[in-house]
Amino acid sequence: MRITVWNENLHETRGDAVVRENYPDGIHRAIAAGLAGFFDGADDVLRTATLQDPEHGLTDAVLDETDVLLWWGHIGHAEVADEVVDRVHRRVLAGMGLLVLHSGHYSKIFQRLTGTTNSLLWRNDGERELVWTIDQTHPIAAGVPSPIVVPRQEMYGEPFDIPVPDELVFMSSFEGGEVFRSGVTYTRGLGRIFYFSPGDQEYPVYHQPEILQVLANGIRWAAPRQPLRDQTAENAQRDWFLG
Amino acid sequence: MRITVWNENLHETRGDAVVRENYPDGIHRAIAAGLAGFFDGADDVLRTATLQDPEHGLTDAVLDETDVLLWWGHIGHAEVADEVVDRVHRRVLAGMGLLVLHSGHYSKIFQRLTGTTNSLLWRNDGERELVWTIDQTHPIAAGVPSPIVVPRQEMYGEPFDIPVPDELVFMSSFEGGEVFRSGVTYTRGLGRIFYFSPGDQEYPVYHQPEILQVLANGIRWAAPRQPLRDQTAENAQRDWFLG
Amino acid sequence: MRITVWNENLHETRGDAVVRENYPDGIHRAIAAGLAGFFDGADDVLRTATLQDPEHGLTDAVLDETDVLLWWGHIGHAEVADEVVDRVHRRVLAGMGLLVLHSGHYSKIFQRLTGTTNSLLWRNDGERELVWTIDQTHPIAAGVPSPIVVPRQEMYGEPFDIPVPDELVFMSSFEGGEVFRSGVTYTRGLGRIFYFSPGDQEYPVYHQPEILQVLANGIRWAAPRQPLRDQTAENAQRDWFLG
Amino acid sequence: MRITVWNENLHETRGDAVVRENYPDGIHRAIAAGLAGFFDGADDVLRTATLQDPEHGLTDAVLDETDVLLWWGHIGHAEVADEVVDRVHRRVLAGMGLLVLHSGHYSKIFQRLTGTTNSLLWRNDGERELVWTIDQTHPIAAGVPSPIVVPRQEMYGEPFDIPVPDELVFMSSFEGGEVFRSGVTYTRGLGRIFYFSPGDQEYPVYHQPEILQVLANGIRWAAPRQPLRDQTAENAQRDWFLG
Repeated sequence: MRITVWNENLHETRGDAVVRENYPDGIHRAIAAGLAGFFDGADDVLRTATLQDPEHGLTDAVLDETDVLLWWGHIGHAEVADEVVDRVHRRVLAGMGLLVLHSGHYSKIFQRLTGTTNSLLWRNDGERELVWTIDQTHPIAAGVPSPIVVPRQEMYGEPFDIPVPDELVFMSSFEGGEVFRSGVTYTRGLGRIFYFSPGDQEYPVYHQPEILQVLANGIRWAAPRQPLRDQTAENAQRDWFLG
Repeated sequence: MRITVWNENLHETRGDAVVRENYPDGIHRAIAAGLAGFFDGADDVLRTATLQDPEHGLTDAVLDETDVLLWWGHIGHAEVADEVVDRVHRRVLAGMGLLVLHSGHYSKIFQRLTGTTNSLLWRNDGERELVWTIDQTHPIAAGVPSPIVVPRQEMYGEPFDIPVPDELVFMSSFEGGEVFRSGVTYTRGLGRIFYFSPGDQEYPVYHQPEILQVLANGIRWAAPRQPLRDQTAENAQRDWFLG
Repeated sequence: MRITVWNENLHETRGDAVVRENYPDGIHRAIAAGLAGFFDGADDVLRTATLQDPEHGLTDAVLDETDVLLWWGHIGHAEVADEVVDRVHRRVLAGMGLLVLHSGHYSKIFQRLTGTTNSLLWRNDGERELVWTIDQTHPIAAGVPSPIVVPRQEMYGEPFDIPVPDELVFMSSFEGGEVFRSGVTYTRGLGRIFYFSPGDQEYPVYHQPEILQVLANGIRWAAPRQPLRDQTAENAQRDWFLG
Repeated sequence: MRITVWNENLHETRGDAVVRENYPDGIHRAIAAGLAGFFDGADDVLRTATLQDPEHGLTDAVLDETDVLLWWGHIGHAEVADEVVDRVHRRVLAGMGLLVLHSGHYSKIFQRLTGTTNSLLWRNDGERELVWTIDQTHPIAAGVPSPIVVPRQEMYGEPFDIPVPDELVFMSSFEGGEVFRSGVTYTRGLGRIFYFSPGDQEYPVYHQPEILQVLANGIRWAAPRQPLRDQTAENAQRDWFLG
């Protein structure tokens, strides 16, 4: 499995003390380090890339070597170049897997794929989140307790302005009583997409083993089962017979 | 609209004091009375039927005059005659609407239609339930606040062992932190089915205007748009051409 | 019902003889004339708009008076201004209904809403299309024979690169043996979208009464049930309580 | 993988000459032989069972050793004992995979799981069936051409009276112009179910490599990922905390 963890890396580089305490090497490296325990085979590759890198670190060369891309963004969505979004979009349609994390709900790439605003109810009071498994047969929920207890977390609540998901894997509640579709899947073209909301810069959520288990499961689920290919080009060339 | 509200009517007839206080005329008559405000046209008919009636009040003659059937049961599921379940099942497949209420999740007719146990997590501590609208464009959610606040209620939680719903309209949370798919729809044959969990014998939930609004919306949504018909018979008689 | 039928109006204005024979006043006016039989009430308004109009005829003023927009485009997708697409997109998310017709699968607005290429298999040999109802309880299929026989038509076949639809209403076959999801629904934000493929400039499909019945049904289904509103703004202002 | 192929084995044992020519050792043994090429590992077990065996060959002991059950029936559905159907149903809910084949659409077990009649349009003229992949990312469609061409086959057409599938993997057309949802998935409880219609006693469909590939893919998809368990019992015992 060749995994690239992308992070806007702005809270970290702008010196946010809380974030640096939670993630001294950046959220991207924390996630990559956590995933290393799941993907340690000879063929496994874990890369990171950030907004500050040339082409945000998502060159054709990097994407050629990426089976599944993880996307973490928050305050820098508007700074992501449209050409990079176009490129990632084309790759997803051709079969690359994508995990959209937490505040990535507002990222350009997720909005491009959903066609919606992805807005949600929001409040940050450091409340407990309970992440309940709804689809018990789903491979993304394998080996994960229900509920996962996240001791302190930002609240994301319904209405969550997304399309009806292909699959509803997890549903969360918060101490305020809100509910949220916290783990949902989509297919776009030949690509599989998993949005998972638990995870925040202010709370050490990405250090929880259950959360890392979900990410690892999501990566395995989203990985392409065949070489990437362009359906539009294939359709145009197809020489179908008259029956 | 011709509506029949069915109730096992056992808590009431066995003298449960709390239930009699909440529903002195029985849950069925309380629901019918509440619906009367929504269906008061010249063509609207509101009937009730109970387990104690001959054929449980669900004779062919009654079902012939029923567009939508509401089902409330709890401790008497096993006492419902299989012939009556067969009859209701055939009607649903032919297009009659069905609303399954609260503890009706364990009814024979709902199990017959879902193919699952419909088991769920359960606790009764009189907690607050919040009923959040998930599908904001759905006619069943029209005119309903999100969340509906039910001050005291029994907890029903996930895992809820139902098939993936056609539509997820409402999702509830409880003070204990549980979540529950509290309003879901299915189609079986030509019939539309709406399961709605808020409503209990120990709490006066069916007196809440918002809850009655949901039931009225559900009835309108589930009502057949055409005369009932038997697809199996139609398929068998169909004389289709060779192209 | 306030309906606006949009057409790129290029085949017609560029003097395509076959198209002019089928639709002497343009596809938009043919559709509007056909719909006039279904929407002839005092409150019904049928407008047309084309690519050649200022702002393509889709000004804020026109959209303010539009409950459901129909979109027909083919060779001019790239000529549609992005600002107009942005505007229509926002309206759909706020609750305006949208019917995307035939070659509109490749329109900017449909691609924006789906996040996919919407490419498909294609061949034009004037074959018979059979449009089968799959979801018999769906209001869009009400009063429509199954199959609808379109005597001569362009072939659109699978793979059709769209997201999994919310509902699969119609499925077509062609003489070559291809199949196609010819009637599918989506919800995006508060807006309802119906894509319906039968209909072409070279064949007089929009003169068939069954096809017009489907369009009329689709319009009724897609119409907003409440005033348009901006969920993102609502979410931001929402003052939710701590439980 | 431990696979049990069940067949009513009535056409074969009653001396139907065409069936014996296609499947001299019975449909069950032909399928098992075809699958042997896909499941030849040290831990793979391929069993067959028939209606004529004691308890139809589906004893608790056999089911204890079965990860995925394949079901072929046609003229003997009514002869299947209800106790065996109950037993298979409980296993599916606990996580056993199930493949329902061809005329098994009318089997008691599939009707029990769907809640519908599963009736369909039917004609037997030995026509060509084209099996098109609709869900290109689905593991059941991996490595399978689109379309699969079945040279001679019985026609199964819409309306197919099944619940809306969780996933629509394949869609077929026939020479008569009919369409059919020929490969659909469901989840019931913890069990995964795949219905696949191509395959008949009168035509040698189960000898086609592409058809066997689909069955092998279906088995891998439906296999339980965890030990079977009883959700109802788990829910009843669950000791959940008050938040």
